Amino acid sequence: MPQPPDLAAARAGVGTVLHGFLQAKAASASAHGLPEDAPRVLRDFLDAGGKRLRPLLCVIGWHAAGGHGEEGPVVRAAAALEMFHTFCLIHDDVMDHSATRRGRPTVHRALATRYRAGRSATAADRLGSGTAILIGDLALAWSDELLHTAGLTARQLAAVLPLIDRMRNEVMYGQYLDLAATGNPSTDLPLALAICRYKTAKYTVERPLHIGATLAGADTDLHAALSDFALPLGESFQLRDDLLGVFGTQAHTGKPVLDDLRDGKHTPLVALALQRAAPAQAAQLRLLLGCPHLTDDQAAVARNIITATGARDTIEQMITDRRQQAERALTHSPIPPATAAVLRHLAHTATRRTA
Amino acid sequence: MPQPPDLAAARAGVGTVLHGFLQAKAASASAHGLPEDAPRVLRDFLDAGGKRLRPLLCVIGWHAAGGHGEEGPVVRAAAALEMFHTFCLIHDDVMDHSATRRGRPTVHRALATRYRAGRSATAADRLGSGTAILIGDLALAWSDELLHTAGLTARQLAAVLPLIDRMRNEVMYGQYLDLAATGNPSTDLPLALAICRYKTAKYTVERPLHIGATLAGADTDLHAALSDFALPLGESFQLRDDLLGVFGTQAHTGKPVLDDLRDGKHTPLVALALQRAAPAQAAQLRLLLGCPHLTDDQAAVARNIITATGARDTIEQMITDRRQQAERALTHSPIPPATAAVLRHLAHTATRRTA
Repeated sequence: MPQPPDLAAARAGVGTVLHGFLQAKAASASAHGLPEDAPRVLRDFLDAGGKRLRPLLCVIGWHAAGGHGEEGPVVRAAAALEMFHTFCLIHDDVMDHSATRRGRPTVHRALATRYRAGRSATAADRLGSGTAILIGDLALAWSDELLHTAGLTARQLAAVLPLIDRMRNEVMYGQYLDLAATGNPSTDLPLALAICRYKTAKYTVERPLHIGATLAGADTDLHAALSDFALPLGESFQLRDDLLGVFGTQAHTGKPVLDDLRDGKHTPLVALALQRAAPAQAAQLRLLLGCPHLTDDQAAVARNIITATGARDTIEQMITDRRQQAERALTHSPIPPATAAVLRHLAHTATRRTA
Repeated sequence: MPQPPDLAAARAGVGTVLHGFLQAKAASASAHGLPEDAPRVLRDFLDAGGKRLRPLLCVIGWHAAGGHGEEGPVVRAAAALEMFHTFCLIHDDVMDHSATRRGRPTVHRALATRYRAGRSATAADRLGSGTAILIGDLALAWSDELLHTAGLTARQLAAVLPLIDRMRNEVMYGQYLDLAATGNPSTDLPLALAICRYKTAKYTVERPLHIGATLAGADTDLHAALSDFALPLGESFQLRDDLLGVFGTQAHTGKPVLDDLRDGKHTPLVALALQRAAPAQAAQLRLLLGCPHLTDDQAAVARNIITATGARDTIEQMITDRRQQAERALTHSPIPPATAAVLRHLAHTATRRTA
């Protein structure tokens, strides 16, 4: 009888692996007379929060494919996904010039502050961004190292590497589309949905499940069943995130509530609002979105327009539809019932969350 | 009788692999409605030049360890090293805010120019840098993909991955030291030599040889013999580069001759000059180094001080000593004579070059 995944244990296990790995990196740097900043910055970043969604999904994917016995290697591979995600967030924040993440200054901003002594603000900002890029690069290299030293068999490693490669392509192309569209939101709903699919549905949900399942030797049928669940769930998850980015509160999300509006993020929510707004409303919305000095009052105007167009309700409906689609996909799937129940619970909480 | 490595064939082979890989990436992006910019930018960057030193050393390392027969997989692994180096250069140029590379605008500058239409200069610069960071990230991910799909046996792959991990750690820590010291050159010669060792001696020479040798199943004796050659050669190679950065001409190096001085690069040349300069000279040199608007006349003053301290002559002597040390290491090594001859030739040209 397969055991249901113990998510609390998996979460703790991932934390232990990441702490141990970074501690060893700091010790090794110190022994070679090299700076210990990078492992320390990464440890602080990881300790500041995060849902550990990708590593947990990796462990769930392993159970979904009938994985059993020693969980050590799969937990270490799961930790590699969290380290990879750390790379993504640090670089995204540099690219987006974001100031806050997880309720704290972003890595490049915290470093710029540290480098301020004896330097001009411009020089400190440049060094902060440069160092953040480099620490991100190290996080990417170290995610590989975690995977290579996870204790996988040669066969497991060979099976999982092509999936890792695919996942990286997908999230980087997603970020590429996102970066090019940010500051220039439009009525292009297919583009907004593509960003959603690549950056979240595939990267955050589908591939972690696939990677875990592959480590347990899953066949193509199980991969397809996981995709049928993961893609609609991942889209609903991102659509919820977009709503929170516009209508949420900083206390809940850890990010300033005006960031998404000030950045002019191109999301399905905004694309729908622009499609449906009357010409005068649309013109006003375009003016407000992407305005770096947007005030609270102006943000309220933008929110009212988005709500008035019905875009907010439509997105809520899309979230519900996709969550239900994901749940239906579990019903007749080859996924063991105990694991399917965990996925069903996850679908429920992830799409109704407030943060 | 082992064949000597055919470097012209290896170089052509690496070019064919890189072109084919990027062409496939462009075709796949196009088929998925994704932008083809990233593979195109990387192709143009690779076509603009580069000595292909790392892939060639990888192929030489394979021959040094008695590699023979089908060269396809080793050439593909060698191409992965060039793709990794492309990532390094693109990110280094963003971190250093360099304007020129290989006689052309750097990637982030070329992209900023392209994004200039309809945007402020600041917005275009930000998007240019952001996109360059992302294209660098893709180059790093794609270097892995080239390696994973090189047709290596599971045993070869498992043997080579820890070396790849070590190489990445070394070059990234080297860049970390370099970044922190740039703009603040000092008398700290050990730090300047550590940057030299991590960024060049180990990354550019030792690890590519080791990686190639590992693919041919080299033992620890051969690895040690390759290190005995590689580390002094790599140091001499970087010391030559530092001299060219101060005393070279743009026609030869493809980089503006004032860049290293304007950046205030912390090199053994500068550390020695600051150590030996009289107080008034040292104060003047510190003022000139790292000055972003340094003129040709001021650069001439800096060069004269460096030469007058004897630092230039000492570095020339250090280059000669290290080259001879590298050549001596070949004499009683287990490396086959035909391959040793190729390494000897390389040592000679790489340390006497003018570009």
